[in-house]
Amino acid sequence: MASPDRIHPAWLPPEAFRAIGSRRTLVLGDGLLAGTVHDEVAEACARYGGHVRRGAEDGPYDLVLALTTADGLPGVAGEVRPGSAIGAEGYLLARRDGVTVVLADDPAGLLYGLFHVVRLGERAFAGERQAERHRPAMRRRMLDHWDNVDVHPVTGQVERGYAGGSIFWRNGAPRGDLARVRAYARLLAACGVNAISVNNVNVRATEARLLTDRLGDVAAIADVVRPYGIRVHLSVSFASPVVLGGQASADPLDEGVRKWWARVTERVYDAIPDFGGYVVKADSEGEPGPFAYGRDHADGANLLAEALEPFGGVVHWRAFVYDHRQDWRDRSTDRARAAYDNFAPLDGRFRDNVILQVKHGPIDFQVREPVSPVIAAMPATRLAVELQVTQEYTGQQRHVCHLPPMWREVLGFRPWGPDGTAVADIAAGAAGDGGGLVGVSNVGDDPYWTGHPLAQANLYAFGRLAWAPSTDPAAILDEWIDLTFAPTARGDTKPAATGETGPAATGETEPLRRTLHAIMDDSWRTYERYTAPLGVGFMVRPGHHYGPDVDGYEYTPWGTYHFADRDGVGVDRTRATGTGFTGQYPPPWSEVYESLDRCPDELLLFFHHVPYGHVLHSGSTVIQHIYDTHFEGAEQAAEARRRWEEAAGLFDPDLHARVKELFDEQVRCAEEWRDQINAYFFRKSGVPDVRGRRIP
Amino acid sequence: MASPDRIHPAWLPPEAFRAIGSRRTLVLGDGLLAGTVHDEVAEACARYGGHVRRGAEDGPYDLVLALTTADGLPGVAGEVRPGSAIGAEGYLLARRDGVTVVLADDPAGLLYGLFHVVRLGERAFAGERQAERHRPAMRRRMLDHWDNVDVHPVTGQVERGYAGGSIFWRNGAPRGDLARVRAYARLLAACGVNAISVNNVNVRATEARLLTDRLGDVAAIADVVRPYGIRVHLSVSFASPVVLGGQASADPLDEGVRKWWARVTERVYDAIPDFGGYVVKADSEGEPGPFAYGRDHADGANLLAEALEPFGGVVHWRAFVYDHRQDWRDRSTDRARAAYDNFAPLDGRFRDNVILQVKHGPIDFQVREPVSPVIAAMPATRLAVELQVTQEYTGQQRHVCHLPPMWREVLGFRPWGPDGTAVADIAAGAAGDGGGLVGVSNVGDDPYWTGHPLAQANLYAFGRLAWAPSTDPAAILDEWIDLTFAPTARGDTKPAATGETGPAATGETEPLRRTLHAIMDDSWRTYERYTAPLGVGFMVRPGHHYGPDVDGYEYTPWGTYHFADRDGVGVDRTRATGTGFTGQYPPPWSEVYESLDRCPDELLLFFHHVPYGHVLHSGSTVIQHIYDTHFEGAEQAAEARRRWEEAAGLFDPDLHARVKELFDEQVRCAEEWRDQINAYFFRKSGVPDVRGRRIP
Repeated sequence: MASPDRIHPAWLPPEAFRAIGSRRTLVLGDGLLAGTVHDEVAEACARYGGHVRRGAEDGPYDLVLALTTADGLPGVAGEVRPGSAIGAEGYLLARRDGVTVVLADDPAGLLYGLFHVVRLGERAFAGERQAERHRPAMRRRMLDHWDNVDVHPVTGQVERGYAGGSIFWRNGAPRGDLARVRAYARLLAACGVNAISVNNVNVRATEARLLTDRLGDVAAIADVVRPYGIRVHLSVSFASPVVLGGQASADPLDEGVRKWWARVTERVYDAIPDFGGYVVKADSEGEPGPFAYGRDHADGANLLAEALEPFGGVVHWRAFVYDHRQDWRDRSTDRARAAYDNFAPLDGRFRDNVILQVKHGPIDFQVREPVSPVIAAMPATRLAVELQVTQEYTGQQRHVCHLPPMWREVLGFRPWGPDGTAVADIAAGAAGDGGGLVGVSNVGDDPYWTGHPLAQANLYAFGRLAWAPSTDPAAILDEWIDLTFAPTARGDTKPAATGETGPAATGETEPLRRTLHAIMDDSWRTYERYTAPLGVGFMVRPGHHYGPDVDGYEYTPWGTYHFADRDGVGVDRTRATGTGFTGQYPPPWSEVYESLDRCPDELLLFFHHVPYGHVLHSGSTVIQHIYDTHFEGAEQAAEARRRWEEAAGLFDPDLHARVKELFDEQVRCAEEWRDQINAYFFRKSGVPDVRGRRIP
Repeated sequence: MASPDRIHPAWLPPEAFRAIGSRRTLVLGDGLLAGTVHDEVAEACARYGGHVRRGAEDGPYDLVLALTTADGLPGVAGEVRPGSAIGAEGYLLARRDGVTVVLADDPAGLLYGLFHVVRLGERAFAGERQAERHRPAMRRRMLDHWDNVDVHPVTGQVERGYAGGSIFWRNGAPRGDLARVRAYARLLAACGVNAISVNNVNVRATEARLLTDRLGDVAAIADVVRPYGIRVHLSVSFASPVVLGGQASADPLDEGVRKWWARVTERVYDAIPDFGGYVVKADSEGEPGPFAYGRDHADGANLLAEALEPFGGVVHWRAFVYDHRQDWRDRSTDRARAAYDNFAPLDGRFRDNVILQVKHGPIDFQVREPVSPVIAAMPATRLAVELQVTQEYTGQQRHVCHLPPMWREVLGFRPWGPDGTAVADIAAGAAGDGGGLVGVSNVGDDPYWTGHPLAQANLYAFGRLAWAPSTDPAAILDEWIDLTFAPTARGDTKPAATGETGPAATGETEPLRRTLHAIMDDSWRTYERYTAPLGVGFMVRPGHHYGPDVDGYEYTPWGTYHFADRDGVGVDRTRATGTGFTGQYPPPWSEVYESLDRCPDELLLFFHHVPYGHVLHSGSTVIQHIYDTHFEGAEQAAEARRRWEEAAGLFDPDLHARVKELFDEQVRCAEEWRDQINAYFFRKSGVPDVRGRRIP
């Protein structure tokens, strides 16, 4: 479908609009986004023969998309008008008397309602449908791009990017392909994302200037994404007053610095009235920050928040702060503790428009980590949870690693136990005023957007989970399959099914769907099996983080150790004998993680150093678990490749060929992981595999 | 002495010419190099008040430098004329009746004789001196520069260079600083080097063109170094006929290819009549070679040799060929075997002007390796022994690692036992027609030439050992000290000593000399102690090769393993149970290395896999030896720093400061080595240090 010079449509192929495009639609309401809704429908109608009207012309209509505030809602539409507010960005969907109605309080809601109808396809126009309200759980559903304007000699253009160059920037200047940016915005709107930051959190010289003399480049992006309800944010350097403004200092308590930020920010809003705000990585891995002036992170974040406040902007202040020059000999220092130790004491000191952006785990996007204790530790702070859509430690978009099941676990985790609030609720905020969900983008200028075509599903699911965090990942995968491989997969060519979004299987599409579920549903756990057992992390090649190197980070300053010796492995993070990290959790988890008996198997080595013979809840020993999971994981990767090869006839040949090629690398790499990990631990432990398999 | 914008004079400071420059000298003989001799003396006289004449003017003279063929040798000079040939590049030195006489059969010999007089200083003009003949052991004494014309994004400009950029090239073009090239040639002549190759053996697109349309750049260098008796060689790509010549193939048996090389080579000699020849790395680490055409290395080398033969040029064909995509799981493949397996069967098939260039050890310039068995395996082939002056695996010119003691061991090694020929004799050739000695240069555009000022001594000693391989390294170090820190060190300001070159200690210079010997003499073994025990290699950070990473190469395709497990460590290369590599040596070494009892301690783990409790000849166990040497090595590095710091007043402050700074890094790094190696092996073996020292 996508030749190198053609961009794959991802989950918005023209066929996804067939049901709408062949119908009669009325769009009622004003505003930029209502216009987008109209134009989307009009484009579909031009292809499929339907028509669309704006304003109160006579029907009949099959679909009415209207603002609740619109004058003259026709017939059925007027009747389903709700008694109370639908809410920001929300929509109401109903079908009665052969008319499908989407109502919203604001144009953004209309746009999201439209995409809901797109997801439903023919099902949107069948039978009756009780009024149902939809509104996003998170106010901000944001993607951070770690894109550089310049191509960096070591990290490339997109830091931790595995899908080619930036869609925003070419080396040193805007890329100029605004059609692609528009297509991207449209894809994001269709999965619910409403904010993007357009440059790397490690802000270098050229990128720093996006805040000032190169602001026009950012405004050009904002203009293109605005019709899709997306606001633009900018990563800025904390040292901007010095490096851009010629100030003597960037001290957050300095009056001149405050004025500088106020002045600069005012100019930003002159150019981009709906500008989202600043993203800041400060005092982290060498980036400048308030520590240089003896100030703390609250001082730093509040400085920027004050400048943004008059315009409704926010600061995303990252909590990813730790000592990256740790002495590996010192076992008392624990990088897992760092975010909590740095930020928990500051709870309550941040201004209202500061959002503390917390990585979901305490270390750094490993395939398995506990949930960060910071998330439960700062009730008086707006927290955003940061996920990594780009697969830095999870196969770099050369491996299938479908992440929504991991994210679902994170979002559903309840720090105070089964009766307490879930992580998703904290991010959403009790009054809908939480920090929301942030994902590090996996998108580049690759024709398939994400390098690995199946990695599109991670991007799609990120948006959908940000909108509705308790959705079953398998159901989201079905949505993605339906849209991406529509109409075949969705069965629009068959008589319309009457179910909701979700599997609308037909005899024809079922093999494709089965193949993708078989390959993707459990792929995160498969990746975990052949890479990192029991919560051990960072057994990767240093620098690029691809492929195994068990001791690659063991004797380094990065604070990422497994402490394997001939007797055992794991990091003792207990209060009793270890670093005390377990004490950063509230009960019951402070007790569960502390206890060797109660700690979940999959996190055992994250919290405890145990002998290789330690018996897991599963009944296996640690060493046998290592062997078993690595043999099993590599076999599962090979099995996934077999499934994919068998399904050749079900997919576009180009897409199939690319995935097939990537599977070859995945299987090779999985075997490499299996053999290196098993060889390493066999050499160290001397314990043979009870099943007598070959360990090299 | 050397500020950043000033180039350090290395071993030719003006003061080194004081003795000559204050005397009356006659230079007799024609030719370019006789002119150089005259000009050198004239320059010294201009500074120190002596004078120099050419032609048979009346004396008296203190020094006569004359060709044996010159007409009208005056008085004493005529009397010492030898009865037989002195030989190419050689000279005769005598002193009688107050006249010091240097005679040579060719102008190059005069030049080397002049530098001998420089080394002697005042001692050249004291007392009587019986006629002594000097001639180089090796016909070719060559430095290979791994310099790129372009700056490579990963490997930089000088591959494995630790002294800045190239002195020949700036990024993409000649550097244009011919004065620096001239100064370099002069330094090389003063230590006896007579050939350089001017570009990296990994030949990329720009560098390939030096052979053809950019040949003028090479000719310009040749013109500058020629007056110092140095011939220029060029690294060429075996694929040149394809990449430069538009030929369909580079097949060595293809008539068109042969003609292409003949034509191109003729043009090279048109531009550079004394061009030395080609250096080729073929079918190695991805470089093109004859294998692509089903031909072998003899076919490949002979192709180029045939083209060079009419002009007296040679091919240096590197024997560094191995499988760099080895499966680490396969313990039967042994990279150490590769050069022998590839080349020994070809003995006798190479044309006379092919020089097979063999790294001194079977792997790759590790701090400790046995001598390559290839050197004893090809009696019908001209072999050059390749040493690495640049400190890739020996501290990268941030550590003091004085290499001549290692080289002396290599050159003195007798593959057939105590009564057999030594490596140096093989390289020299029975009839003086051997391949000679080749060193990979450690020079860059750094003001001190070599990054670490004390690394100059390695470069100096390389030339001196190529000239006279059995010289005691400590005596060469004395020469270097005398020249570099002259006149203070050489005592020229004192009444002249009467000894030969070598320690001419005075009360004043002895502390400086003692300091340098204390720091440098044993520094190679110190480096070995804190890095690689008992012949284990490659426990370095992958890629850049600096600092420890015990498993860094253990699970890679590079063929560089130690196979450490909880029970033991080392590579079984025996015939009885291992890879059979020991069988590549003739007796007695085939038996000595095969035998666990007889194998020298320092190579034990190169040849055998042994338990940690194995008792060495030294009486220590392997594991205790690891601990002891690492504690000791790090302590010796610290002690060397202390010695250097105490000697602050003895050295130029800039030089002292630079070395001091480098010592800080050396000590830090040595401690890192100590702790990582000890921790790794303690974790693996579980054996505590008998002395109870802290192992982290």
